[in-house]
Amino acid sequence: MTTAPEFAITRRPKTAHLIGREGSRYQIPTPALVLDLDKLEHNLAYMTVFCEKHRIGLRPHAKTHKSANIARLQLEAGAVGICCAKLAEAEALAEKGIHKLLLTSPVVTEGSIARAMELARQTEDLILTVDNQKTALEIQQAAERAGLTISLAIDLDVGLHRTGIAPGDLASALAHFIDGASHLTFRGLQAYAGHLMHVHDFDERKTKSLDAMRQLGDMRDRLRTEGIGCEILTGGGTGTFNIDPEAGVLTDLQGGSYVFMDREYNEVPIANNAPIPFETALFVQSTVISNNTPGLVTTDAGLKSFSTDADPPIIHEGAPDGASYFFFGDEQGGVLLKDKNEKVDLGTSVSCVVPHCDPTVNLYDWYHCVRGDVLVDIWPVDARGCSQ
Amino acid sequence: MTTAPEFAITRRPKTAHLIGREGSRYQIPTPALVLDLDKLEHNLAYMTVFCEKHRIGLRPHAKTHKSANIARLQLEAGAVGICCAKLAEAEALAEKGIHKLLLTSPVVTEGSIARAMELARQTEDLILTVDNQKTALEIQQAAERAGLTISLAIDLDVGLHRTGIAPGDLASALAHFIDGASHLTFRGLQAYAGHLMHVHDFDERKTKSLDAMRQLGDMRDRLRTEGIGCEILTGGGTGTFNIDPEAGVLTDLQGGSYVFMDREYNEVPIANNAPIPFETALFVQSTVISNNTPGLVTTDAGLKSFSTDADPPIIHEGAPDGASYFFFGDEQGGVLLKDKNEKVDLGTSVSCVVPHCDPTVNLYDWYHCVRGDVLVDIWPVDARGCSQ
Repeated sequence: MTTAPEFAITRRPKTAHLIGREGSRYQIPTPALVLDLDKLEHNLAYMTVFCEKHRIGLRPHAKTHKSANIARLQLEAGAVGICCAKLAEAEALAEKGIHKLLLTSPVVTEGSIARAMELARQTEDLILTVDNQKTALEIQQAAERAGLTISLAIDLDVGLHRTGIAPGDLASALAHFIDGASHLTFRGLQAYAGHLMHVHDFDERKTKSLDAMRQLGDMRDRLRTEGIGCEILTGGGTGTFNIDPEAGVLTDLQGGSYVFMDREYNEVPIANNAPIPFETALFVQSTVISNNTPGLVTTDAGLKSFSTDADPPIIHEGAPDGASYFFFGDEQGGVLLKDKNEKVDLGTSVSCVVPHCDPTVNLYDWYHCVRGDVLVDIWPVDARGCSQ
Repeated sequence: MTTAPEFAITRRPKTAHLIGREGSRYQIPTPALVLDLDKLEHNLAYMTVFCEKHRIGLRPHAKTHKSANIARLQLEAGAVGICCAKLAEAEALAEKGIHKLLLTSPVVTEGSIARAMELARQTEDLILTVDNQKTALEIQQAAERAGLTISLAIDLDVGLHRTGIAPGDLASALAHFIDGASHLTFRGLQAYAGHLMHVHDFDERKTKSLDAMRQLGDMRDRLRTEGIGCEILTGGGTGTFNIDPEAGVLTDLQGGSYVFMDREYNEVPIANNAPIPFETALFVQSTVISNNTPGLVTTDAGLKSFSTDADPPIIHEGAPDGASYFFFGDEQGGVLLKDKNEKVDLGTSVSCVVPHCDPTVNLYDWYHCVRGDVLVDIWPVDARGCSQ
């Protein structure tokens, strides 16, 4: 049965006519997701140089940006591949021509395994991750039926206990199963210590992350002695990008947030007494829509316009010094002024650094790409909402 | 300049082939927003009967559902109109043929006032709200240029201090300005006491809400003595729907969440010792994707799949008694089992009551409409992301 035509949503930005116009950044209807391309390019270049210098690959995570344009920039800069969190995210990027996708979450249902086979047929070098033998067998059977050979990496649980199999005998047995299966190729190990990314103290983060890497290295060594080589040892994130290479285990780094940065990562000291090398490239731009109450103005960006799992947005520009943002319901934000006599005009543009970039991006259909105060391009958030 | 064709996103659900199949509810790729139509119809009918009985109009808020299908059901059941929180939300519903829209938030920029003129031209009986004379003048000027007469209601601040003008001389002057303006029609007053909707104690909520209604009634009376009648006195919400009519001030109720319900509203006692008359109609359906850690399983629905501004989702079905959900990062949820020896199979479907319905709906492109365990229809979330 084909998809009926009534089951389609088509969205078009109402801002294309603004592209290239002087000052157009501030004419975008708000709330809008604004991406500063100069800062984005700085971040991409910094990470590329860093990885080259440390002789480690980069396999950036698209769960942050969900954008084929940004994935393409990352691949052009030398990334060894692109990570996706979900099958639908990978499908959306593959549809835009992105290849070399590593799916970092398991697919376990009959329906999703069937979709993964379809995706493997359509894209070059798809790698799935698996954390148990039952699923590996089901993928083997589906691959056999489909006449495909599927690349699998084992997701190793190095302490987060979210997905993954603990290092040890069961993990070894799983590797041997995959290695011996007719329609599977064992590619290596994934280990993501997500619980460590925002550990505030650098030394504590370093100690714990190196321990996670040690577990990964030990598993790799065990498999090697058992005759199974790991082509890929993938993991890490923005919070440990400059710690993990030191362990000498990973073949590639999976960082995502470094492309944009957000309040959370801006508040994690990247190193002891060292400045954060990434610049904030992503903002939510809003507009003051009410100013009748002394000491307070109201913007049009509330909790449908930012993720709310972290501390509130930080005001970047548009409000007097000392002003702070608070969530004022679904549709509005409040800006608390330091001085009750301060006035902010209706229509004033207020830009905020987002609390947490990944889920904030997931709220928007478009990146409004700017250089200075000019809107220069509009990029779709291709995989917005593609969590399936 | 026309919108270039590359600036379009078209989304199609991958689930249309499941419609009408036995058990298809559990074959939907997850996370998915599932709408139980039997429960929805109960809620719509209950509120219709309630309003008829209390001789008050119903002007339900579309910021909750963002759906032309649901707005149409509400209008067919006798709603006097539909509220929209944002201009883009109203534009999206108007495009699907919904009329009688009241925009509950102010439009203040030149660009948004121009869009409001366009919308007024395309839809029947659009009402804008305004909370200051500068904006009212700008709307008058834009209406004059466009050759339109625009309906305005004054947004009265009865204590929330988010938008609105305080009752008193300035509000009176604003009403007189609108009443005397050549291209404006004064329609009445809006008063929304959003800060009271979730006050847990019923008596406290009632006292405060009736006080807000008294402020609205006083303002209406003052304007009446000054020769200005209010055709519309609109406000209230799901949390005070059975309090506000008692004050005898409102001509219509603006509730939104009653159509779906959520954890937040399920935990507010609607009356002292009375059961909540609305049923939970909305769920996020997820799937267990990892179960290697004793006492814990992982689902595919994390903080990109629920709003996170309220307490966590409540597990409705699919997990053993006593299990509780916790956010396990952007992409996953954790289900903590009461007993470490309990097992939940990979692929198990876990349905949750959402923490807060409005911002959760705003994460999804589609409602998967079910009756029992059959997927019976797919409705677009027409105004998803339309916060501009």
